[in-house]
Amino acid sequence: MGELIVRAALSAILGILLITGSKSEQRFKYEIKEFQVPLDHFSFLINATFNIRYLYNDSFVDKSNARTPIFFYTGNEGDIELFAQNTGFLWEQAEKQNALVIFAEHRYYGKSLPFGSSTFNTSMPEHLAYFTVEQALEDYAMLISFLRSDRQMPVVAFGGSYGGMLAAWFRMKYPHLVTGALAASAPILQFPGITDCDIFYRIVTSVFENAYNANCTVNIAKSWKLFETLGGNDAGKKQISDAFHLCSPLKSDADLKKFLGYIDEVYSNLAMVNYPYNSSFLAPLPAYPVRQVCYYLKDLHAGDGDLLHAMSSALAVYTNYTGSSKCLDISATSNADEAGWNVQSCNQMVMPFCSNGTETMFRTSSWNFKEHAEKCYKDYRLTPKPYDIILRYGGRNLEAVTNIIFSNGLLDPWSGGGVLQAPNDKVFVIILPEGAHHLDLRHSDPADPPSVRDARNKEAEIIARWIQEF
Amino acid sequence: MGELIVRAALSAILGILLITGSKSEQRFKYEIKEFQVPLDHFSFLINATFNIRYLYNDSFVDKSNARTPIFFYTGNEGDIELFAQNTGFLWEQAEKQNALVIFAEHRYYGKSLPFGSSTFNTSMPEHLAYFTVEQALEDYAMLISFLRSDRQMPVVAFGGSYGGMLAAWFRMKYPHLVTGALAASAPILQFPGITDCDIFYRIVTSVFENAYNANCTVNIAKSWKLFETLGGNDAGKKQISDAFHLCSPLKSDADLKKFLGYIDEVYSNLAMVNYPYNSSFLAPLPAYPVRQVCYYLKDLHAGDGDLLHAMSSALAVYTNYTGSSKCLDISATSNADEAGWNVQSCNQMVMPFCSNGTETMFRTSSWNFKEHAEKCYKDYRLTPKPYDIILRYGGRNLEAVTNIIFSNGLLDPWSGGGVLQAPNDKVFVIILPEGAHHLDLRHSDPADPPSVRDARNKEAEIIARWIQEF
Repeated sequence: MGELIVRAALSAILGILLITGSKSEQRFKYEIKEFQVPLDHFSFLINATFNIRYLYNDSFVDKSNARTPIFFYTGNEGDIELFAQNTGFLWEQAEKQNALVIFAEHRYYGKSLPFGSSTFNTSMPEHLAYFTVEQALEDYAMLISFLRSDRQMPVVAFGGSYGGMLAAWFRMKYPHLVTGALAASAPILQFPGITDCDIFYRIVTSVFENAYNANCTVNIAKSWKLFETLGGNDAGKKQISDAFHLCSPLKSDADLKKFLGYIDEVYSNLAMVNYPYNSSFLAPLPAYPVRQVCYYLKDLHAGDGDLLHAMSSALAVYTNYTGSSKCLDISATSNADEAGWNVQSCNQMVMPFCSNGTETMFRTSSWNFKEHAEKCYKDYRLTPKPYDIILRYGGRNLEAVTNIIFSNGLLDPWSGGGVLQAPNDKVFVIILPEGAHHLDLRHSDPADPPSVRDARNKEAEIIARWIQEF
Repeated sequence: MGELIVRAALSAILGILLITGSKSEQRFKYEIKEFQVPLDHFSFLINATFNIRYLYNDSFVDKSNARTPIFFYTGNEGDIELFAQNTGFLWEQAEKQNALVIFAEHRYYGKSLPFGSSTFNTSMPEHLAYFTVEQALEDYAMLISFLRSDRQMPVVAFGGSYGGMLAAWFRMKYPHLVTGALAASAPILQFPGITDCDIFYRIVTSVFENAYNANCTVNIAKSWKLFETLGGNDAGKKQISDAFHLCSPLKSDADLKKFLGYIDEVYSNLAMVNYPYNSSFLAPLPAYPVRQVCYYLKDLHAGDGDLLHAMSSALAVYTNYTGSSKCLDISATSNADEAGWNVQSCNQMVMPFCSNGTETMFRTSSWNFKEHAEKCYKDYRLTPKPYDIILRYGGRNLEAVTNIIFSNGLLDPWSGGGVLQAPNDKVFVIILPEGAHHLDLRHSDPADPPSVRDARNKEAEIIARWIQEF
């Protein structure tokens, strides 16, 4: 398996997670506004501007209080409306703190496209030049300056996943604009040279190992060889296609490769959304879906057919929990916004992934930066700068950082790139033993386990203190 | 008088101060090296690079110590060699702390020109697009990363004037790269809306008021009217030209305007270099030169001729202290590097100056941003961004800042834009009652007054503590 596929798939995961939340869940209301920003904040050559969107809700604000807090979501890779609907914790706290609610859309995502419909036109790679973390943070800085121009209002940044990285970096670089940041499941250490590239797959494997019994990962590890052997001839390809009810039966080695990549991604997704209650985040799923998957893989199978059958049942937990799918479409994970994240992985967000086949349930794959860079240049005329983020944001040197909460769920494979040790007593690390990917940012639910409730209480307390001390 | 002349003159002062130090004073030795940096750190469109220079001296380094400190001068507006020769305090402390000495040249100054001899070619204004504070800080960040790539070495940033601003901002934005910064006479608050635009001239006036007796500023305030009245006709122009021994006698109103602008600048320079010992920084001068100037202006004169004569003697303290000048050349303050600073005043370094004629000894002048911006566009096709610096570096909101020493001399007119109150106990404010412009950064001298010695001792102690705690 090419490591690039793994890379692309995982990069996409970071992007997909929230944006696949259904838009029909209109739990929260807001006005949609626009704000003009420079195309290039750092140059004096380009004077072009464009508009980013932001969501605005002042219904909780106590108009008699000039020091209204602003809860500012630093939008990440997707349409900002979907983040607003999937970040219930911010709304709940805004109501308690009488805060103004702002969700700012990240440039190049949703409807905040600097060049409209030609933004991602591959024949105009120059359109991608302003698609950086620093430009996005400057957008947010300008917007906050605008929003609090007439009053001294404390601002708290919120974000999950890449949005959490942005919230943390925003506090680091603009502490005069935000009094603190909640960075949920923010893998700010998932960069070259400072985190082992196999950590993600090791955590996924560990989640599967501990879900039901040890046979689960043994079966998965064995399955790759089976798929490759069967997939080597036409009869085997048909056997796989039938067992998994593929909408488009495997015809070529490329099809097989794509199928295996799809399975990789399903395992990773399952670990991320291994929530303690039924959810429909990436897909309709039961509580603790990994346990369910591993239930189907609890026995060691002697025959290939048995293993194939068991794998099919296991995967159906993710692909067809409702039973309404007629067949399995392995191209269905693609999402319009993947386009954006793929670009970011080709400029600054260079996150190495690899797998040592003997230590994980995944196939062996290595991180090959050269190959990645070549593909980036071919696709976008971009040369990735793998050390840009570490140079600017400090990597593991976080001693001078203050007023950031880093929350991480131990069931979340992204926690391997998260901040798990506080560099000083002004940075708070909150661990959610039962937590998957930024579960704490979601609205409270009767089924929330105690550790998530505790985490939210602690986060609320720290945020309230920041506001008070401002 | 046009406020633009005042602005240009004062902006230039910030630039001139160190770079006019004579190159013949080769007190300190170093290797000159080059380091390749991206032309544009923030874009993925431009892959061009160029070289900045830096000075390197490892003669103090204890090779057996892997944690060698680096003392890193964040170069400002001029040839880096002149800063190296005029920052003796860094060298003295480097010897004590066994530090590696680095002086980094600011892009677009000295020999660190991104487009060589066409860098400032006005027919190619696009060459100026990458001449920003952020690009310069990124150059330094990359250079430090390179220098300490193989070891964990504590880095202390040093800088005076604009270099002090850069040292402070560098610590704010890259605390993972520098453990602390000495920002000497760094007017980081001299920006629109956060500091009164007349503070500079008020301090200059106060220095002159307290130098000898109160008649000094009364005479100077009266002189403007006299110059303007006399300058209104040819005979008067000749009278002025004769009294001041001008090399080029005044012929036009433009000449008169230039002459008055020159005098403005001399007063400001005098206040800045009002050092307690003979010096030859901007010009050969006696100790406390303002006192000497005011000695010649101690009497109130009834007749215009007497005042003119007294003014001439007073100014000669600055213009001809050695007595070797045959005539006064009022174009002599120009300096090659003014070109650079003028550009910066037209993009980010928008520092408003004004004067209320009744409260200072200067003529009334107002700050007119629109006029400034028009001139910037005319000269360089640049549109200044007056709030860029405040947005990025926080203006007066410095609560989250740590490990910076802000030193300011009370005799320094730039202290009006300096940080005079510590926002927290990790920021140190050191006031030098007898200090002019970054006197503390200079090498120690037997004639140093106690307050300067005390300041240096305190600075040395704090820097040593940063290194120890690293």
